[in-house]
Amino acid sequence: MSHFAEVALHHASRLINHGPTVLVTTAHGGRRNIMAAAWSMPVEFTPPRIAVVIDKKTYTRELAAASGAFGICIPGAGLVDLTYAVGSTSGRDEDKFARHGLQARTGPVLGVPLLEQGCAAWLECRLIPERHAEDAYDTCFAEVVAAAADARIFANGHWRYDAGNAELQTIHHLGGGNFVCGGKVVQARSMSLRA
Amino acid sequence: MSHFAEVALHHASRLINHGPTVLVTTAHGGRRNIMAAAWSMPVEFTPPRIAVVIDKKTYTRELAAASGAFGICIPGAGLVDLTYAVGSTSGRDEDKFARHGLQARTGPVLGVPLLEQGCAAWLECRLIPERHAEDAYDTCFAEVVAAAADARIFANGHWRYDAGNAELQTIHHLGGGNFVCGGKVVQARSMSLRA
Repeated sequence: MSHFAEVALHHASRLINHGPTVLVTTAHGGRRNIMAAAWSMPVEFTPPRIAVVIDKKTYTRELAAASGAFGICIPGAGLVDLTYAVGSTSGRDEDKFARHGLQARTGPVLGVPLLEQGCAAWLECRLIPERHAEDAYDTCFAEVVAAAADARIFANGHWRYDAGNAELQTIHHLGGGNFVCGGKVVQARSMSLRA
Repeated sequence: MSHFAEVALHHASRLINHGPTVLVTTAHGGRRNIMAAAWSMPVEFTPPRIAVVIDKKTYTRELAAASGAFGICIPGAGLVDLTYAVGSTSGRDEDKFARHGLQARTGPVLGVPLLEQGCAAWLECRLIPERHAEDAYDTCFAEVVAAAADARIFANGHWRYDAGNAELQTIHHLGGGNFVCGGKVVQARSMSLRA
């Protein structure tokens, strides 16, 4: 049974605020794909907008451009090997969802495939056409139109890391297949930082 | 004594690949500033390029635009309170380096102020003028022209997290002043992910 619950759009930026490695999901014309991306960030709170680097040579980029949409799924620590595996083969050759036995749900607004099992959260995103940034920097801007998170680790707009949800805690790619997992959470003294 | 050593430019992207919260440093016309930024990412390996979101209302944005340069300093866990503090006041009102007793070194290429004490690494960046992305998304693209890291935690192109360098391990802002620190590092099985 899924523990996913809707995340208010004004809280969507917090899902990737801390720089997790993500999975980018796409579908178009009966084909679908999933790839890993280490390079993403929020760019605006309201409307919730993000930027993600998707190499122009990838099948994901092709499907995102054709459909005008993609999903951002945030894998938990239990999906380290899957995250690395889907970053290593092309969806042009095979359906990576099928190869890895992944059950995708359909995004509520745009119909993009979204992975929930083993993930902490997902964001359904509408591509904002920005030809120059896409061409020059492989940077794709998008608006988040729906978001949800596993309530065991993100609820009421806040992440909660504890001993009971270690497998859902986000992973952060250091390079070369090494991922740092979430450690202890500390509360800073003093005032607000953009987030 | 500083443990900082030069980082080869083709390894610069790895310094922020895992999504740490960073400090953006700037200087122009005798004024300088330092602010926290949770939203940054690499966009290219070679030439090393990054993107960082700097609100157009900030003094940092004003100084970066005027000088065409900024520094990205990566605070270690020991600087959680400082990171939050410099994200909460404006450099228009006071010199935050002086207020917090920060010793800045001068960037080797562009002369930007760079913080080493308590930081894991820094990147000296030349702003790439991209008026539309700056206006529409507060997203500033830049080329990394020099980089260095504390050899106790990053050497030969790789992060090394261990019990001895906890204070230098990166911090990742979850929102609301809560930062997750680096935990255990896991090596994924299988092939390459962009990093």
